[in-house]
Amino acid sequence: MSRLFMFEKPLGMRDTLPELFDRKRVVRASIEKEMERWGYRFIETPTLEYYETVGSASAILDQQLFKLLDQQGHTLVLRPDMTTPIARIAASRLLKKDMPIRLAYAANVFRAQQKEGGSPAEFEQIGVECIGDYTISADAEVIALIISSLQEAGLEDFKLSVGHIGFAHKFFLKILGTEERVEALTRFLFEKNYVGYREHVKGLALSSIDKQRLLDFLKLRGGIEIIELAVSLLENEEGKEDILQLHQLFEMMGDYGLEEKVKFDLTLVSHMSYYTGILFEVYAGKVGFPIASGGRYDQLLQKFGKQAGATGFAIRIDRLLEALGDDIESSAVSCILFSPERRKEAFQHAQELRRSGKKVVLQDINGVKDIDNCTNQYEDITFLVGNAGRETEI
Amino acid sequence: MSRLFMFEKPLGMRDTLPELFDRKRVVRASIEKEMERWGYRFIETPTLEYYETVGSASAILDQQLFKLLDQQGHTLVLRPDMTTPIARIAASRLLKKDMPIRLAYAANVFRAQQKEGGSPAEFEQIGVECIGDYTISADAEVIALIISSLQEAGLEDFKLSVGHIGFAHKFFLKILGTEERVEALTRFLFEKNYVGYREHVKGLALSSIDKQRLLDFLKLRGGIEIIELAVSLLENEEGKEDILQLHQLFEMMGDYGLEEKVKFDLTLVSHMSYYTGILFEVYAGKVGFPIASGGRYDQLLQKFGKQAGATGFAIRIDRLLEALGDDIESSAVSCILFSPERRKEAFQHAQELRRSGKKVVLQDINGVKDIDNCTNQYEDITFLVGNAGRETEI
Repeated sequence: MSRLFMFEKPLGMRDTLPELFDRKRVVRASIEKEMERWGYRFIETPTLEYYETVGSASAILDQQLFKLLDQQGHTLVLRPDMTTPIARIAASRLLKKDMPIRLAYAANVFRAQQKEGGSPAEFEQIGVECIGDYTISADAEVIALIISSLQEAGLEDFKLSVGHIGFAHKFFLKILGTEERVEALTRFLFEKNYVGYREHVKGLALSSIDKQRLLDFLKLRGGIEIIELAVSLLENEEGKEDILQLHQLFEMMGDYGLEEKVKFDLTLVSHMSYYTGILFEVYAGKVGFPIASGGRYDQLLQKFGKQAGATGFAIRIDRLLEALGDDIESSAVSCILFSPERRKEAFQHAQELRRSGKKVVLQDINGVKDIDNCTNQYEDITFLVGNAGRETEI
Repeated sequence: MSRLFMFEKPLGMRDTLPELFDRKRVVRASIEKEMERWGYRFIETPTLEYYETVGSASAILDQQLFKLLDQQGHTLVLRPDMTTPIARIAASRLLKKDMPIRLAYAANVFRAQQKEGGSPAEFEQIGVECIGDYTISADAEVIALIISSLQEAGLEDFKLSVGHIGFAHKFFLKILGTEERVEALTRFLFEKNYVGYREHVKGLALSSIDKQRLLDFLKLRGGIEIIELAVSLLENEEGKEDILQLHQLFEMMGDYGLEEKVKFDLTLVSHMSYYTGILFEVYAGKVGFPIASGGRYDQLLQKFGKQAGATGFAIRIDRLLEALGDDIESSAVSCILFSPERRKEAFQHAQELRRSGKKVVLQDINGVKDIDNCTNQYEDITFLVGNAGRETEI
């Protein structure tokens, strides 16, 4: 092993040291608790799945998959998302009673990175999936739950945008005629490159009316008033059903008392190709990427042999922590330094403190090279050294 | 995708459904809490590490490693244990102050399996590492902590055996002369094949005195009395220092009030080749494999460029759950079934119940195909359907 290589980690892989670990745990626990109060039940799936089942059904680009061969010659992938493995479990083991099921997870997912210093290649998502329910009530529930989860985690200031991939797709297909052209145009939306979108539209061989409709599409961002505007852009009412779903959703959010938290953005598209209906994303603070996203995926379960509507979301813990800032403190650790002749006394003292809920390091003084360093590392230090009666606390 | 293949998972990979998930979480949380009370701090390391750093330094057989190539052509492994990644972090980032550090983890590790229905290829370990301390106090601490952790998890009846790999190795090497012969003999001990051990000894070209010493070695299992017996088997006192460490350890366990929990077994060897001194394992109930094991590894940090004594242990959550049996209950979930006209009332009712700590599923009745199935799935159901005043609870 060369010295240069000794400490290195693979591209995009990170260590989580105690302070960050504790912050992650506090945030994760508060969200977990809220999800469970809403009747969602947590499950765990394997880190490795078959490429032929979960890997290819997931919406993550092939080049972002970590692949390996098992000893039987099958291609395996490190799970790139949790929605697809959960769809596998739901279809195979849980959806037998024709009842909607509510599942949750907090798990690391894996997406290979191309360059140093880029996004993490392994990161934690906490999320839910509501499977087996086609009603807009289910969409409203997961949106209400994402708001409630983020609030429980301590996030007050965030922006939730709701769109409808079905509406966007129908609108574009009607005007542009082919899937290829739709994809070329929506890529600008995915990249939130509105200047590029406008340039692209101007260059298209379309009537000036259709061009204007495509340009006006960019205005479909705002409050409930954009619903009417969206309807006015439609030809032959194709896509109107989708817009009415958004209207229904807005009313439901009102019943939750959350209508002020919801903004519409019909230009919202996603890299998750399995979304079919209402979708949403959340931005917060100065974080440059969505801290959470989700939506309806009514086709995914079919890949595992079941017909079932489904919706869900995932929160990225790393981005949520970034948005929350540094205000979670880890609790203090005390230290008892003892010499062998006072070992028993030290053990008993530690045990008492621990029973009262304190965190206490017991340290044989012979195991310490430089005692001064202790004073920096711990909240307080008790010396039980030499003969009894001489201890001091600093 | 063929239908046969659709639901399959890679060899040794398992799903964790809600009930088991909840049991794991309760057990993990109680152990985590205890480890933290003892001043251990939790960290997380990447799932993927370089084969050339962590992979080759770990004690897991090469054929058990999951390997893959990254896009730069490096070989990566899914971490097969947590001790080696933690040694990497400790050496590179945490051991700078020459102070012992106490780290903990709860993480899945990966070991490829050869056959269907065998051991899991991914399983969770929860454990600690006390790094930078050569004193026997550190060995005593981790043994006291493993006892305390298992008790906190609710395990009352378990058997902890303590050995000394340094003693066993010196004893065998003195008689057998070469590492190869030592390895051939200790393999029987690792497999706990004492009949095979005896046969093997009988076939060796040794004096009858030495053969008898090797056979008598098998008697070194029991209470503190075997210390004296072990000394009597030694030639020229080589290995006596190791035995005295065990004596010292026993006295310390007495100071912890735990001497009755400790049995000695000097025939204990481990597949973890990095152990150098006191080592131990825990059996419980009818579980056929150790539910936990640990020991001192004073050479491992050297592989990452530091001289530092260290000891630690890992508990296998799956085996601990097996030993604990099925007596952890998950808490009940209620369900409110509502029709659209009473949505708001349903939301408010759910919110009240959730605030009081209850777990409540809100379900639009239009999302349910067969209402009878609800009655089996939930603790209780409230119907908020049709006009107000007609609700019933079943």
